[in-house]
Amino acid sequence: MLEVEVKYRAHLAAVKSRLPSLGFSPSGAQSEEDVYFQHPCRNFAETDEALRVRVVGGRVEVTYKGPRLGLGGKTRAEITAEADLGVLEVLERLGFKPVARIRKRREYYTGRGLTVSLDWVEGLGEFVEIEKVVEGEGEVAAAVAEIRRLAAELGVGEEVGETYLELFLKAYKGGG
Amino acid sequence: MLEVEVKYRAHLAAVKSRLPSLGFSPSGAQSEEDVYFQHPCRNFAETDEALRVRVVGGRVEVTYKGPRLGLGGKTRAEITAEADLGVLEVLERLGFKPVARIRKRREYYTGRGLTVSLDWVEGLGEFVEIEKVVEGEGEVAAAVAEIRRLAAELGVGEEVGETYLELFLKAYKGGG
Repeated sequence: MLEVEVKYRAHLAAVKSRLPSLGFSPSGAQSEEDVYFQHPCRNFAETDEALRVRVVGGRVEVTYKGPRLGLGGKTRAEITAEADLGVLEVLERLGFKPVARIRKRREYYTGRGLTVSLDWVEGLGEFVEIEKVVEGEGEVAAAVAEIRRLAAELGVGEEVGETYLELFLKAYKGGG
Repeated sequence: MLEVEVKYRAHLAAVKSRLPSLGFSPSGAQSEEDVYFQHPCRNFAETDEALRVRVVGGRVEVTYKGPRLGLGGKTRAEITAEADLGVLEVLERLGFKPVARIRKRREYYTGRGLTVSLDWVEGLGEFVEIEKVVEGEGEVAAAVAEIRRLAAELGVGEEVGETYLELFLKAYKGGG
């Protein structure tokens, strides 16, 4: 399974008002805090990998993100494990260093086989992420086209290729 | 909190028959599978650290073990996080390599503020571990003395300084 996702800069109030008439309905909302780690001996910026610990309420998820596959959108393999907060200290003892802490509020809408996430990201602004889960690489191009059609209908056009982590590092650390 | 622990080679049937008269009663039994990992860029054999994923039933624990503190017994800091099985693949993607898989059956006895664990370890034999949890380093020496007194009462004398991981590597990989 692959997650095909395209992100856009957007004015969320405008997007939100259009979603219902396009066949989407609210499917949840949550606040997330993501802690991204640097590997002790591998440069994740070069390998295009990431290690993220996401805290949502009392729940913790550890996610390894593989390099983007160059298939369109931010398609990449993701491996996730549920954990508890102790995992943050285990990672630090192993030499992983927290490099960014990103807080966001998300509202999810689903419809037409797609998920739309309205994201208010602390310090970075407002974004829409549109996602489709596909079975294999052969379906990625069609999924990207479908996502772009919906983005046009929603009136969002400025695609953002960077992850929130990259945007954060660019904004706050002069990195890229 | 520190875990003070001394391990002995033992004939478990004999030990088991003595425990009740010394004030100990059974407090549980479980089968454990421990997967130990090598760090991608740190030699755990040199730093005297360890990373262990323990699988007990459907439960998974990730434990970082710091270097032995040289205070007596195998006293060391341990940081543990609950997780699910996905954590094994996350670790492998991050470059951690499984170096040993150790299966054991443990029966626990408690009494007199101590925990005795009777361990049948696949491929390594039978061992008794006696443990006391203390608040600080100042209490370690007294705890070790108390553990040794109990070991004498139980008729076990051959202390084993190595961890099961070290015994495993010595037996099966010619390592040390």
